[in-house]
Amino acid sequence: MNSSETGKPLLRALKGKITDVPPIWLMRQAGRYLPEYRQTRQRAGNFLNLVYSPELACEVTMQPLRRYDFDAAIIFSDILVIPQALGQELEFIEEKGPVLNPVRSAEAFARLSPAKFAETLAPVYEALRLTCAQMRKDGFGRTTMIGFSGAPWTLACYMVEGGSSRDFQHVKSWAYRDPESFSVLIDTLTEAVTEHLLQQIAAGAEVVQIFDSWSGVLDHNQFSQWVIKPTRRIAEAIREAYPDVPVIGFPKGCGRLAMDYAQNSKVTALSLDSQISPKSAVSLFQPLMPVQGNLDPVCLLAGGTALEAGVEDIVAHLGKGPFIFNLGHGIVKETPPENVEKLVALVRGST
Amino acid sequence: MNSSETGKPLLRALKGKITDVPPIWLMRQAGRYLPEYRQTRQRAGNFLNLVYSPELACEVTMQPLRRYDFDAAIIFSDILVIPQALGQELEFIEEKGPVLNPVRSAEAFARLSPAKFAETLAPVYEALRLTCAQMRKDGFGRTTMIGFSGAPWTLACYMVEGGSSRDFQHVKSWAYRDPESFSVLIDTLTEAVTEHLLQQIAAGAEVVQIFDSWSGVLDHNQFSQWVIKPTRRIAEAIREAYPDVPVIGFPKGCGRLAMDYAQNSKVTALSLDSQISPKSAVSLFQPLMPVQGNLDPVCLLAGGTALEAGVEDIVAHLGKGPFIFNLGHGIVKETPPENVEKLVALVRGST
Repeated sequence: MNSSETGKPLLRALKGKITDVPPIWLMRQAGRYLPEYRQTRQRAGNFLNLVYSPELACEVTMQPLRRYDFDAAIIFSDILVIPQALGQELEFIEEKGPVLNPVRSAEAFARLSPAKFAETLAPVYEALRLTCAQMRKDGFGRTTMIGFSGAPWTLACYMVEGGSSRDFQHVKSWAYRDPESFSVLIDTLTEAVTEHLLQQIAAGAEVVQIFDSWSGVLDHNQFSQWVIKPTRRIAEAIREAYPDVPVIGFPKGCGRLAMDYAQNSKVTALSLDSQISPKSAVSLFQPLMPVQGNLDPVCLLAGGTALEAGVEDIVAHLGKGPFIFNLGHGIVKETPPENVEKLVALVRGST
Repeated sequence: MNSSETGKPLLRALKGKITDVPPIWLMRQAGRYLPEYRQTRQRAGNFLNLVYSPELACEVTMQPLRRYDFDAAIIFSDILVIPQALGQELEFIEEKGPVLNPVRSAEAFARLSPAKFAETLAPVYEALRLTCAQMRKDGFGRTTMIGFSGAPWTLACYMVEGGSSRDFQHVKSWAYRDPESFSVLIDTLTEAVTEHLLQQIAAGAEVVQIFDSWSGVLDHNQFSQWVIKPTRRIAEAIREAYPDVPVIGFPKGCGRLAMDYAQNSKVTALSLDSQISPKSAVSLFQPLMPVQGNLDPVCLLAGGTALEAGVEDIVAHLGKGPFIFNLGHGIVKETPPENVEKLVALVRGST
């Protein structure tokens, strides 16, 4: 890096600066692929205890920084804290994932009580404050703190389906049949997400990312209505309150609709999934905004020459514009930690 | 339709002709949304009995024609007959789907015995012959008979993962780590698919469709290697043997990579999933080939004004070029049969 370049590399990239060495962090970098995470997770007893214990959440957020000196920390939490804060029952079942008591009508949604919204989410902000202090203490002065939230559409998917789904027929048919009452759900989520992100920023987040994991299951009209519109409202509200805090949008799996998202959602930067070729992304998206991505998590899991070729393909193309190296989705729990070490070395050119 | 237009509407569209009323059929049109299907299915005892009983497979293939007079029949079968014919154990478990004894290495694959390949698949061809005869007998003279197969990549996904998967890490990491031995699997599948399609044509299929349901989980390099290359080999082999038999390719969920597929896979027509807007598809794909699609199956499930608007959006745009109306994926089993009736009336302009 040029000696005249100062400040945090991730923030610089998000301001549109091109760096010799791209900043790097990984989605789900605090996670089960790390033995020290699994240990803390066991100490917590269950997943939600870990999410809601500020000290333990801080600890697992710090773990990947100590190993890999990533350019960002992302607060350890879960997107489903919002449905829970809105009063929905939530449980994590081993090997199965989240299970929620599904909300499939305006009436069922109206019966939820958000009375404990702020109280439920408070430990997330406390974890952020603790982590920021710990990062300062441990000398991570060039590391950026990222807060995050699920996007309204993706949260609605979990709330209505009651967990993951094959065809998302409950949430989608509600949206098709009665867009008016479905809007009430989406609007409430839009406000909740905005509030949650603003509080995270107040607690120390310097960047926020909006995860729209299920944006890919919608057709173009529905995508515009349930993905782009709410995301734009959130991005605009954040910008109004904190003009300098960048918002990264991650509309996973949305294929060609990513262009509509890039042009209309008002996010600062676009996180790309692994499907799009880096070469196409250079001409399509980098002229519009900084991009983040997009190594296939299974390529990282596989390692070896495939990993080298994958990194080379991405850095050679996207590295010439404003760019943050990341995966195209969360790291897979079976990934050998030494592959992550190799990845960081490859990206930083120190292999 | 103009009185000078003769022949089967689906075949005409596949030859690039534009029709006043687009031909229509639905993926998985012989299926659980029909009470008469559920009855036959119960008589068969289990799903695989139904697949391998020519008389019953013929019967369920005919059922949707009798109700809706679709422009095509698609032989009732399953893409997993090929792994089974190659010697892999296969079972269908209620509410869970297919379970295969996973094959995760070249050695494991080499241990499978394809000795009963032709014998296993023979009932599919017998079902085709029976159905063609039945269609003639029942006066479905304008209805086109479609044969089909899973694509090599999608079949490899099921064979290696042992069923459906969240992240496809076993099949993808094999492909990344050892492309050479993975090629052996893909090449064998490519030959098996080709043989299966040729036999279906010999038994009466006038069109074949290749379903690549999991093409969307690959990055652009892997997509080119494991989706486009094998598909091209299959399409070329079919064309060499049967120059007049159209091949419809369905690379589901592949977003922007669909253009690469359209340009390089040598299929005759492209089946689109629901994500792409009809308006974009007109300018992107219709200049290259006839297209098929792409109503969201959940829009059909929902019915009402959303269904009307969805059909209008598709027909108004794509109907001006060579086009086959279809869903963007298989019909959902909870779909009310009367919604299908309404759909057909909307497409045929008889509402």
